[in-house]
Amino acid sequence: MNRYLIVFLLLFTVPSLYAQVIGEKHYPPFVIVPLGVRGGLDESNLSSYMVAAGGTDDYICLDAGTLFAGIQKAVDNHVFQGPASAVLRSRIKVYFISHPHLDHVAGLIINSPEDTAKNIYGLPSCLNVIRDKYFSWQSWANFADDGEKPQLKKYHYAPMTPGQPEKIAGTSLTVKAFPLSHGTNYESTAFLVENGGRYLLYLGDTGADTVEHSNRLHQLWEAVAPLVKTGQLSAIFIETSFPNEQPVKSLFGHLTPDLLMQELAALNKTAGTEDLHQLSIIITHRKPSGNQEETIRRQLEGHNPLKVRLVFPEQGRMMGF
Amino acid sequence: MNRYLIVFLLLFTVPSLYAQVIGEKHYPPFVIVPLGVRGGLDESNLSSYMVAAGGTDDYICLDAGTLFAGIQKAVDNHVFQGPASAVLRSRIKVYFISHPHLDHVAGLIINSPEDTAKNIYGLPSCLNVIRDKYFSWQSWANFADDGEKPQLKKYHYAPMTPGQPEKIAGTSLTVKAFPLSHGTNYESTAFLVENGGRYLLYLGDTGADTVEHSNRLHQLWEAVAPLVKTGQLSAIFIETSFPNEQPVKSLFGHLTPDLLMQELAALNKTAGTEDLHQLSIIITHRKPSGNQEETIRRQLEGHNPLKVRLVFPEQGRMMGF
Repeated sequence: MNRYLIVFLLLFTVPSLYAQVIGEKHYPPFVIVPLGVRGGLDESNLSSYMVAAGGTDDYICLDAGTLFAGIQKAVDNHVFQGPASAVLRSRIKVYFISHPHLDHVAGLIINSPEDTAKNIYGLPSCLNVIRDKYFSWQSWANFADDGEKPQLKKYHYAPMTPGQPEKIAGTSLTVKAFPLSHGTNYESTAFLVENGGRYLLYLGDTGADTVEHSNRLHQLWEAVAPLVKTGQLSAIFIETSFPNEQPVKSLFGHLTPDLLMQELAALNKTAGTEDLHQLSIIITHRKPSGNQEETIRRQLEGHNPLKVRLVFPEQGRMMGF
Repeated sequence: MNRYLIVFLLLFTVPSLYAQVIGEKHYPPFVIVPLGVRGGLDESNLSSYMVAAGGTDDYICLDAGTLFAGIQKAVDNHVFQGPASAVLRSRIKVYFISHPHLDHVAGLIINSPEDTAKNIYGLPSCLNVIRDKYFSWQSWANFADDGEKPQLKKYHYAPMTPGQPEKIAGTSLTVKAFPLSHGTNYESTAFLVENGGRYLLYLGDTGADTVEHSNRLHQLWEAVAPLVKTGQLSAIFIETSFPNEQPVKSLFGHLTPDLLMQELAALNKTAGTEDLHQLSIIITHRKPSGNQEETIRRQLEGHNPLKVRLVFPEQGRMMGF
């Protein structure tokens, strides 16, 4: 063989082989693009997280408080190529909604006229409120396939059964739902996302078991403890809405830094681990009143006995776990 | 009297006299701070306009699609002194909601936990949907004084009767409501705001009478025609959601540039004026899909037979009329 041809082949084949064999090993199991990270008030930045298997562009969207404005921020940061509405249409494959408070679902409703056909996953308690209160022809056109007629049938409601895994078509992800308590008689949801034996856990708004007089978090910790022990669970997205000064009677089903650490201690005990230093805890839903966001960060960093990796997500900035 | 004292007094008294006697004459009848100007999708910039009598800081808020993010923009532009939540609490005295589609009311719901006690004005058809669909304990806590119990009673629903003026406490403004047609069997509202014999007209989403098979705009033009004739009406805020290319069957109760000009011709005819060159037409609710906002602007500027002053409002930039 001509030696120039050999050099030519090496030059063009080896980098491609490298990308396939070596390069792909560098993809993290999950890539996340936060579309909104604040716990209320700021309509431009409300809870929503796009999650894909590393190395793919096929995202599920966990909660949908803000979509368009968050995607626009990600486009500005060169995470996606715009326009924002094209990213919304083609990159987001399905929605998972943790609970139907408006700050977790407003973006989905408001963007529905421009969206493509998708499934909306959630517990029945959540999907029923979306059906009856938002896609109702009085609040909005009914873009879904249940509820008030005419039904425009762009969205399909996909009710979940707690603990039963759902394979998400068009992705390599599987998702399980676990019910949470978010104030008296109000159900929220945690989603456990799996990609090839690696896990990410996302919790919607939730109070602590002690405050909620509930065992929902205890049950969730029991379910994920084996994954913590083996190191298969790399990240937990969990709220810390208020600083420690918030009176217990004004928690409204939310966590403080101390209550979060108390719940993580319960997880650590259930898992039988020494500490949780291998776990990334992504702090969601800090309420932006006054200086509260900074106070919450300071309180968490100042008292972290289990040595978790505290992460404060930024709107439109990609993360990998 | 010591001549230095005379100079001193002149220096300090005259500018203050000037401000009182001369300066105040320069205030326009109305100052407006747009908090959101886009017709959907972008959660950070949805319909909402703060309106005050010139020279005062006491605003009414016409629609409330985006509040916090719009106030933040105005703070960044030095229109208000922050923080945004303080402006929301103290500068906005009351809300007027034209219709309960989520892109006109999401900001009010989402900011309610931090807001102060206020009236929400609207036609009963609108207030009933806010009561039943949003402040319902399933979508959100009930911060109002009607509907599902417990009622937190921060907001008082103030139902309006079409054509009946409401004096707005804490301001020098009076507001009248006129029903509009926004698609089949869906009621929207125009608000006519008065300050000392000068008027500003704000229309919520509306279709053209010809398309809606309605006479609601005709009736509105009849009511305001005398104010156009005398020059007392200085500005009309009206939507142009779609460009001229939008098929009639896909207007969903909205206007195009041609339909807007057709309706303004009807107003001009009713008023018996030669043209409407004294009238500022503030274009609201352009839908931000693709290049549509720019297309709508070009089409309006390209065909303006009545010579109205076309104004394209910007979020967080103060205007006077």
